[in-house]
Amino acid sequence: MIMKVVTLGEIMLRLSPEGNHRFVQVDNFDVIWGGGEANVAVSCANYGLDAYFVSKLPKHEIGQAAVNALRRYGVHTEHIARGGDRVGIYYCETGASMRPSKVIYDRANSAIAEADPEDFDFDAIMEGADWFHWSGITPAISDKAAELTRLACEAAKRHGVTVSVDLNFRKKLWTKEKAQSIMRPLMQYVDVCIGNEEDAELCLGFKPDADVEGGETNAEGYKGIFKAMAKEFDFKYVISTLRESFSATHNGWKAMIYNGEEFYESKRYDINPIIDRVGGGDSFSGGVIYGLLTMPTQGEALEFAVAASALKHTIPGDFNLVTVDEVKALAGGNANGRVQR
Amino acid sequence: MIMKVVTLGEIMLRLSPEGNHRFVQVDNFDVIWGGGEANVAVSCANYGLDAYFVSKLPKHEIGQAAVNALRRYGVHTEHIARGGDRVGIYYCETGASMRPSKVIYDRANSAIAEADPEDFDFDAIMEGADWFHWSGITPAISDKAAELTRLACEAAKRHGVTVSVDLNFRKKLWTKEKAQSIMRPLMQYVDVCIGNEEDAELCLGFKPDADVEGGETNAEGYKGIFKAMAKEFDFKYVISTLRESFSATHNGWKAMIYNGEEFYESKRYDINPIIDRVGGGDSFSGGVIYGLLTMPTQGEALEFAVAASALKHTIPGDFNLVTVDEVKALAGGNANGRVQR
Amino acid sequence: MIMKVVTLGEIMLRLSPEGNHRFVQVDNFDVIWGGGEANVAVSCANYGLDAYFVSKLPKHEIGQAAVNALRRYGVHTEHIARGGDRVGIYYCETGASMRPSKVIYDRANSAIAEADPEDFDFDAIMEGADWFHWSGITPAISDKAAELTRLACEAAKRHGVTVSVDLNFRKKLWTKEKAQSIMRPLMQYVDVCIGNEEDAELCLGFKPDADVEGGETNAEGYKGIFKAMAKEFDFKYVISTLRESFSATHNGWKAMIYNGEEFYESKRYDINPIIDRVGGGDSFSGGVIYGLLTMPTQGEALEFAVAASALKHTIPGDFNLVTVDEVKALAGGNANGRVQR
Amino acid sequence: MIMKVVTLGEIMLRLSPEGNHRFVQVDNFDVIWGGGEANVAVSCANYGLDAYFVSKLPKHEIGQAAVNALRRYGVHTEHIARGGDRVGIYYCETGASMRPSKVIYDRANSAIAEADPEDFDFDAIMEGADWFHWSGITPAISDKAAELTRLACEAAKRHGVTVSVDLNFRKKLWTKEKAQSIMRPLMQYVDVCIGNEEDAELCLGFKPDADVEGGETNAEGYKGIFKAMAKEFDFKYVISTLRESFSATHNGWKAMIYNGEEFYESKRYDINPIIDRVGGGDSFSGGVIYGLLTMPTQGEALEFAVAASALKHTIPGDFNLVTVDEVKALAGGNANGRVQR
Amino acid sequence: MIMKVVTLGEIMLRLSPEGNHRFVQVDNFDVIWGGGEANVAVSCANYGLDAYFVSKLPKHEIGQAAVNALRRYGVHTEHIARGGDRVGIYYCETGASMRPSKVIYDRANSAIAEADPEDFDFDAIMEGADWFHWSGITPAISDKAAELTRLACEAAKRHGVTVSVDLNFRKKLWTKEKAQSIMRPLMQYVDVCIGNEEDAELCLGFKPDADVEGGETNAEGYKGIFKAMAKEFDFKYVISTLRESFSATHNGWKAMIYNGEEFYESKRYDINPIIDRVGGGDSFSGGVIYGLLTMPTQGEALEFAVAASALKHTIPGDFNLVTVDEVKALAGGNANGRVQR
Amino acid sequence: MIMKVVTLGEIMLRLSPEGNHRFVQVDNFDVIWGGGEANVAVSCANYGLDAYFVSKLPKHEIGQAAVNALRRYGVHTEHIARGGDRVGIYYCETGASMRPSKVIYDRANSAIAEADPEDFDFDAIMEGADWFHWSGITPAISDKAAELTRLACEAAKRHGVTVSVDLNFRKKLWTKEKAQSIMRPLMQYVDVCIGNEEDAELCLGFKPDADVEGGETNAEGYKGIFKAMAKEFDFKYVISTLRESFSATHNGWKAMIYNGEEFYESKRYDINPIIDRVGGGDSFSGGVIYGLLTMPTQGEALEFAVAASALKHTIPGDFNLVTVDEVKALAGGNANGRVQR
Repeated sequence: MIMKVVTLGEIMLRLSPEGNHRFVQVDNFDVIWGGGEANVAVSCANYGLDAYFVSKLPKHEIGQAAVNALRRYGVHTEHIARGGDRVGIYYCETGASMRPSKVIYDRANSAIAEADPEDFDFDAIMEGADWFHWSGITPAISDKAAELTRLACEAAKRHGVTVSVDLNFRKKLWTKEKAQSIMRPLMQYVDVCIGNEEDAELCLGFKPDADVEGGETNAEGYKGIFKAMAKEFDFKYVISTLRESFSATHNGWKAMIYNGEEFYESKRYDINPIIDRVGGGDSFSGGVIYGLLTMPTQGEALEFAVAASALKHTIPGDFNLVTVDEVKALAGGNANGRVQR
Repeated sequence: MIMKVVTLGEIMLRLSPEGNHRFVQVDNFDVIWGGGEANVAVSCANYGLDAYFVSKLPKHEIGQAAVNALRRYGVHTEHIARGGDRVGIYYCETGASMRPSKVIYDRANSAIAEADPEDFDFDAIMEGADWFHWSGITPAISDKAAELTRLACEAAKRHGVTVSVDLNFRKKLWTKEKAQSIMRPLMQYVDVCIGNEEDAELCLGFKPDADVEGGETNAEGYKGIFKAMAKEFDFKYVISTLRESFSATHNGWKAMIYNGEEFYESKRYDINPIIDRVGGGDSFSGGVIYGLLTMPTQGEALEFAVAASALKHTIPGDFNLVTVDEVKALAGGNANGRVQR
Repeated sequence: MIMKVVTLGEIMLRLSPEGNHRFVQVDNFDVIWGGGEANVAVSCANYGLDAYFVSKLPKHEIGQAAVNALRRYGVHTEHIARGGDRVGIYYCETGASMRPSKVIYDRANSAIAEADPEDFDFDAIMEGADWFHWSGITPAISDKAAELTRLACEAAKRHGVTVSVDLNFRKKLWTKEKAQSIMRPLMQYVDVCIGNEEDAELCLGFKPDADVEGGETNAEGYKGIFKAMAKEFDFKYVISTLRESFSATHNGWKAMIYNGEEFYESKRYDINPIIDRVGGGDSFSGGVIYGLLTMPTQGEALEFAVAASALKHTIPGDFNLVTVDEVKALAGGNANGRVQR
Repeated sequence: MIMKVVTLGEIMLRLSPEGNHRFVQVDNFDVIWGGGEANVAVSCANYGLDAYFVSKLPKHEIGQAAVNALRRYGVHTEHIARGGDRVGIYYCETGASMRPSKVIYDRANSAIAEADPEDFDFDAIMEGADWFHWSGITPAISDKAAELTRLACEAAKRHGVTVSVDLNFRKKLWTKEKAQSIMRPLMQYVDVCIGNEEDAELCLGFKPDADVEGGETNAEGYKGIFKAMAKEFDFKYVISTLRESFSATHNGWKAMIYNGEEFYESKRYDINPIIDRVGGGDSFSGGVIYGLLTMPTQGEALEFAVAASALKHTIPGDFNLVTVDEVKALAGGNANGRVQR
Repeated sequence: MIMKVVTLGEIMLRLSPEGNHRFVQVDNFDVIWGGGEANVAVSCANYGLDAYFVSKLPKHEIGQAAVNALRRYGVHTEHIARGGDRVGIYYCETGASMRPSKVIYDRANSAIAEADPEDFDFDAIMEGADWFHWSGITPAISDKAAELTRLACEAAKRHGVTVSVDLNFRKKLWTKEKAQSIMRPLMQYVDVCIGNEEDAELCLGFKPDADVEGGETNAEGYKGIFKAMAKEFDFKYVISTLRESFSATHNGWKAMIYNGEEFYESKRYDINPIIDRVGGGDSFSGGVIYGLLTMPTQGEALEFAVAASALKHTIPGDFNLVTVDEVKALAGGNANGRVQR
Repeated sequence: MIMKVVTLGEIMLRLSPEGNHRFVQVDNFDVIWGGGEANVAVSCANYGLDAYFVSKLPKHEIGQAAVNALRRYGVHTEHIARGGDRVGIYYCETGASMRPSKVIYDRANSAIAEADPEDFDFDAIMEGADWFHWSGITPAISDKAAELTRLACEAAKRHGVTVSVDLNFRKKLWTKEKAQSIMRPLMQYVDVCIGNEEDAELCLGFKPDADVEGGETNAEGYKGIFKAMAKEFDFKYVISTLRESFSATHNGWKAMIYNGEEFYESKRYDINPIIDRVGGGDSFSGGVIYGLLTMPTQGEALEFAVAASALKHTIPGDFNLVTVDEVKALAGGNANGRVQR
C-alpha cells in the first residue's frame, strides 16, 4: 500500500552562482527550487510515497516553473493554490574550506506568505493521509502562514494523521519570543519532533546544555533536553541531527532519536567533500518519515534517515535525489564509493 | 570638456533564460542588469560623458553586484544610497518570429521604491551637472519615488541643468489617471520630452491620432501631437521613436524630433534579426542626450540617437555597449555588416 | 470538466549540439526528450487536458529521466510500464539557411519496441478517456509495437473513445509496402486522420496529386485526396498541414481540414526564423485534439492547431510549451511580437 | 587514388564571445582554431583528400592544442615544426543585422612569423603532392614567412605540383606597396589565382572597375580584370567570389571562374541567417581545389566551391565541416532545408 | 625509433552530467569518448608511441565523432572499419564522498559487437608492431568480438608482437563461467597479464586470498596468486594495481609487478580529491606498455605506470592526457602540487 | 578618512579551462583578469580604500575589457595609459591532488612592457597617496618597466608615501643576476618588504637557511634572514608567508612579520580544498596594506592579511573578493564554514 504524506510550506527560487563562485563575480545563476517542506515532499516521492505539497504560487510562468520542479520528481501539486504576486527567492553562494556558504533571503510578500485559509480545503487535503509534516519556517513566514499551519494541524488531527515538525528556528524570520508564542501552542498537535538543542531553546524555551557552535557535538548533552521535551509535549519521538562543522566542505554527521523510553544514536558519517549542504536537514526529515512509516524499530528508521541525509550532502541542489535502495546500501555499510557499473 | 549627466531611477536584476528558451524549461538564468535610467547612464558613459546614476540599493552582495555592473561600464555610483531590503527583479524571456518576448515584474518594495529624501543630497548631485534624465517609470514605482523625482527636478532647475524625460507609460505600475496626476505637474521642469503617441495620451492626456499597435507608423500623424505637447509644456524638443513591429525578431526603426519650429525625421533601419530589444528605447534616450549635448543640429542628434538605438537591438542585455565611433559609422551609412578587421 | 486524452508511442532521448553546431565539433549535447505521441501528450497537458502517455521505459535512471520530463509538464505517467533494456535515442543537429537539420536514429531494441501486451491493461487505460491518439511511427517501431497499437485501438473503440492518427511515414523504419499492410487495417478504428499527401500515398496507398518537395504547396491538389480518404475509411475529419520549406530557418505554414462536407483552409504563417522545427507536426496534432474537443467548428479548431504549431517552431526542444491563451492570442491576429509586459 | 594537398600558413587561436555578445560583456571565450590555409586543409581533409598543413607552433600545450584541432579533422600534422614562443591570436566578435563582426589581431611574433627555412624540408613536403595552396596572408606575416612562401613555391614547381593562391589582402599586415613587391614575383609559381577585384588591385596592382563596398557586385565588371590577370601571369584559372553584403547576417553569394577561354558564373545563394562568415573565403578555396582536382569542368568545380562555401556560412567556427555529399546535395539544388532523417 | 602499439576494442560515447549532478536532474550531458583499449591507445600516443586503435564504427557523424576524438590525440585510425548501426553508449554519473559513481551501459549491438573478421586485415595491422594490447572487455562484448580477439592474438604471435591483457572482468557482460571458457584459451598468446585478484578468480579461475572490497589491500596476499598465474600461463609479467577505496573522492593507489623471479611493489599515492576515476586502470596499462617498452627494469616501468595512473584520477574524462615528462616528474617525487609557471 | 593606495604593474588576460580540465581538451576558456599589482588594487578597493592601478593598456576592446574588470570592483583606472599593441596573456590550468596547476605566459611586448615615462605623470599619481605598492614582476617585465618602477618609487618618496614591495622572483622573466642588479638599488625606496627566503635569495642575494620546496616550512629559519634584510635595507617591516604544499588542493598557510624589534607569527590555516591559489600572495599583500594602514599592531595586521589570503584560496579567479567583515570573522576564529543565513 502506498502511503500518503502531506507537507505544508513554501517553495522558493534559489539563485546560485555556478560552483564556488561568489555572487559579485558571475553573469548567470543556476535555477534551483527548494524549501524545507518541499524538499521533504521530494524525498518522500523519491521513496515511492504519495507526497503532496501544499502551498500557494503565482499564476505566472515563474510560479508554474516551481510547480513543474515538484512534478518532475513526482510530487502531487493539485493542492497548491495559484495566485498572489511573487515567488519567494533566496540567493545562495556555495563556500569552500573556511569560507562559509552564504544565503540572502528575498522572500517577503510571497504568495504563500499572503495566502488565506480559503485557498485550501484542509479536510480534503488530510483525507486518507498517513503523515503531515511542517517546519518552524512555515509559521514564521507570516501571521497568515502561522494560521494556516494551525488549521492544517487541526485537520490532520481530525483525520488521525501523524504530525511531525522540524523546529528549524530562523532568526531572520522572527524573534525567539515570537517563535515561542506561536510554536509552543502548536506542539499539542505534534507526534514527532525534530530539532536540535538550539531549536529547542529558541522555539520552545528549553535551556541548552551544550555549545553546538564550536563544531563539536555532545550526544550525551542532548538526552536531558530530549526527555524534557517528550515529557512536556507528549511527543512520541524526539529526534535531532548532530553536525560537526569542520569547514564548509567537511562535516561530521550523525543523529539521535528518543521514543520516550530509549535513546538510539546512529552511525557517524564523515562527509568530505560536501557538494551542497542546503537541504541536509530536510532530507533527514524525509528519511525519518519514511523510516518511521515503514520500518520496525526507531533505530532502523534513524539509520535510514541519517544515511539519506549524508547522501544529500553529495548532491547539488536542495532536493535529495536518492532512492530507497541507495540509502539502504549506504546504511548497510557500503561507503567506499566504488563505481557502480 | 567632459560633460556630466545625471539619471535617477531603478536598476533591476533581469533573469533571462538562455537564447530563445521559455521560462519553464530552463535550469539557469542569465544575470543581466538593467533599468531605464541605468541603461541611459551606461550609454552616456560609453560615449565618454561623466554619467552618474542615482538610486538606492541594499547593502548585501546582490545590491553590490548591481553597483558593480554599473561601475564595470564606467558609471559613477557614489550617489547610490545603500540600504533597504531588496533589489527589484524582472524575469525576461526572449521571443522569436511571432512569439513575443515576455516580461514578469517582481519589483515591489525594492530599495529605491522605499527610499526617503534624506537618502540623497540632490544639490550636491546636481552641482556642475549638464543634463538630468528620468523616465515615467521612476515616479510610477511608488509615491516615495515620485517625490524623489520632484525633488531631483527642482534641484536640477536650481542648478540650471537641462532636464529630459522619457514618458514611458507602464500599465503594470499605475493607471493613466494616476500617471497624469503625477506626470503633468512634473512637466514644468522638463526641457526635452521623449515619448510616442501612446505615452503622450496615457501620461499627459493628449488624444491619439493614429493606431500604432498594428506595426505601421504614420510619422505625419505625430506632428499634431508634437506641436500640442511643445505648446502646452514649453518643451524645447519633442521626440519620438517610430517602431514597426513585424515580428519579435524583425522591426522597422526610425524617429522624429521637433524643436518647436521644424520637424526632422530620421533614416529608417530595418532590424532583422533583433538580438535583444529590451533597452532599445533607453539607448535612444542616451543617444538623444549625447547628440543634443555635442552636435550642432537636431537632425544630427536624432540620426545619432536612432543609429545608436538600432545597434542596441543587436546586443544582448539591456545596456547599449557601443562607442561614439561605432554609432557614427552606422549613422554615416555603413550598414553592410562587413567584418571589421 | 477536464477531458482525458491518451497517447501511445515512444519517448526518446534527443541529443543535440548547442545552437547551430555540427555533431562532430561539440563536447556536450543538450538533453531533450521527445517523441511523436509524447509531444502530443505534453501539448494536451499544457492546454489543461488530463493527458496520459502510454509506453515502456527501463527501470534505470535514464528511463526515470524520461518519466520526469513528462511529469514536469503535467503528463500522467502511471501507465508507463517499466522494464526493458534501453531508451531510444536520436541525435539531432539544427541546421540554418540552406543547411538542413539532420537526425540520426539509434532507437532499435528500445523498451517499447520490445514491450508485450501484458505490460499494459488497455481497458483500464481507456476507461473514461475522451480521445486516443497515435501516429504511424508507433506501429513502425516493431511488430510488437504494431500489435500494441491494434490492441489499444480496439480498447479505445470498446470504450467509445475518439481515435486520431498522424500517419507520419518514416522511411527509416519501414517500407511503404510494410506500412500499408499494417496501417490500412488500423484505419477502421480511426475517426480523425492527420497526414499530408506523401503520407497518404506511402501509408495508405493513395496516389499523389502534387509535388510537395519543391517548397510549394497546392492546397487545391489536396482536396481530391482528402475526399478519397474520407470515403474509403469513413474518417470524420481529414486534416493536413501544408509546409513551404524555403530554408531550414524560414518556412510557410498553414493547414487544411475536411469534415466530409466542407473544406476549411487556415491562415498562413510566415515563420522566420525557425528556432526548432522538430515536433512541429506533433504540436499540430495536439492543437487539433484540443480544438476538436473544445471548439464549435472545424475552422476554429484548425486555426487553433495551426497557430499552436506555428508557435512550436519558435521554441527549443520537441515539446510545445504554450498555453491556450498564447495560442488564442496568435490565432486572434496578434503576431507582431511586441514585448508582453 | 587519394590526392595529396599541401597548404602553408598560420593557425591561430580565435577567442570569441558566445553568440552575439560583445567583447566587453563576457566572462568566457569560445576557443576556435583557424587561419586561412589551415581552414583550406580542413576542407580538403573533410573531402577525403590527404591534406598536410605546414606551419610552426610552440612546443607547449597551447601549441599542442592547435595541432590537436587539425588532427581532429584528419589533417596531417607531421610537417608542422615545433618551437618558437607563441601562438598567434585573434579575437573575434560576431555581429548581427547592421552591427558588423569585429576582429582584433594579436599575431605578431608568432612561431610561424619567426620560423626559419631550416624548420622545413620542402622537398620532402612536396614529394608526391598534387596541389599546393597558400594565401596572401602567409607572406604578409613577416619577411621570414615571405621567404618560406617562396621556398615552398619553388619546391612545388620542382615536384610538378599545381599551385593556387588566395590573394587575400590584409591591410593590418602590410601596405599595398609592400604587398605588390612581394606578391607579384610570387605569381610566377601560381597556376590558380583566387581573389576579387580589391585583392587584384592591392596585391597585384590591377586597376579596379567597380565599387564592391556598397553590397552590390557587378560580375561583368570582373571580366576585364580576369583577362588581364590571366594574361600577365599566365594563370590557368582566375577565380573570384562575389559577395553582396546586405547586413552582418544576410549576404548574397556567388562566384566566377575564367580558364583563359571562357567565363562561368555560378548560381547565387541567398544566405540568411549567416551563422559565422569567418572562413567563408577559405572554404571556397578548399572547394575550388577539390573541384578542379576531381571534376571534369570548371563549371562543376565552381558550383561545388560556391555551394561548399555557402554552407560554411551556416557553421560556427572557421572550419568548413561538410562532406562531399552534403555539398553536392546543395549544389544539386536541394536548398529547402528540410530535416534529413 | 618510434614503437608501434596496437589495441583492439570498443570506443563508446560516454554521456555524463556536469560536475556531481545526478542523471535525473540535468538538461545536458558532457560528451566524452572512452573505452578500455581506446584509452590505452591515447595514453600511448601521448607518450610518443605510434598507437593504432582497431575497432568498427558506423559511417554516420556520431561514428565520425568517435574517430575524431582519437585523431585529436594522435591515435592512428586507419584500421577502424566503418559500418554497422550504432555507437555503444555508457551513461556515467560522478559521485562524491560516500556516494559512488554510477555507470549505465547501452552498448549492445554496437558496430564492433557485430563486426566480422573480414572487416580487418590483422596481418597488415600487426606488421611491424611492437606491442598488442586488449582487455577482457573485448571478448566479452559478443561472440563475434571474442573471435576477433583470437584472430588478432594469432596474428600478433605470427608477427612476433608482445601481447598484453588487462583481465578486467565485467559482470554485466558475461558470467564467470563464460568468461573462463573464453579467456583461459586466450592466455596462451599473452606475455603480460594485468589484473587484480578478483579478475584472476573470475576470468581465470584462481582462488582468491584476500578481500578487496573493504577498501584495504594486502599486497602480500597477491603474491601467491601471481606465482600461480605466471606458472600456469607462462606470463613474462603479472601485474596488478592495488586500490584502497575510502570514498568516491579519496583512494589509495599503488601496484605490484612480478617477473617470474622477483616482486616489486610501487610507491603508494594518496589521491584526494579524485576528479574522475574512470579510465584509471586503462591509464595504468598504458603506462605499463610504455614502461616495459622503454625502461630497463620492471621497477621503473611500474613506477611510471602507477604515477601515470595516479595522474589520470585528476583529469576529467576517460583519456589520460599526460606527457612522459609529467609522469616522470611525479614518479620522481614531485607531488607537492606547486604551480608550474 | 578614505586612504589612497597606488599600485603599478600589469593586468593580464588569464585564459583558463573550466574546472580541472587540461588545456588540450577544452573548447572554451574562462576569461579571468589578473596580475600581481592589479590583484592588490582590487583587494584594497574591496576593503574600502581608494585604490588606483597604474599601467598601460591598448585602446581596443580587449584593453577596455581589462579596464572594465578593474572598474567592476571599484578600482580607479584614470591613471591607466591607453595605447600599445597588446594585452599580456597567461594561460592557466587548474591542477588537483598531485597534479600541479600549470601556467604558460604569453606576455612579451604588452602595452605596459613597452610603455614610456611620458605615459604617466607620477607626481599627479602620488599626490595625496598613503601607500604605493609594486612587486618584483613589474621591473622584470622589461627595462622600460623597470625604469617606470624607479620613477614611481622616486615620486612616492617625494610625496611621503609608504612604499611596499612583494619581491616575487619569476624565473621566466629574468635571471637572479639581472634581478639583483635591478632590485637591490630599488630597495632604498622600500619601507615594507614582503617575500620568502627564496625571493630574498634570488632578488636580493641573501643566503637561504631552509629548504622550502619540500612542503615543510621552518618559521625559525626565517628569522635570521629577516633580521639581515631589515638591517641592510632599513625596512620598517619584513614579512613573509609560509606555505606548506601538500598537494595542488591542500596547503598549510601562515605568515611571519618582523618590525625590526619583534617577530610575530600568525595562526596557521589548513586550506583543503583549494579552489584557486593564483593570486594568493597578492591577496596577502593587499591584506598587509590594509592591516598596516588601519590597525594598531603588526600582529593584528598580519592576522588580517593571512586570513584574507586564506580566503582567497577558496575563490575562483585572481581577485580576492572579500570584505573586511568577512576577513575579520575568519581571523576572529570562525572557520567552521557554517552557512551564513
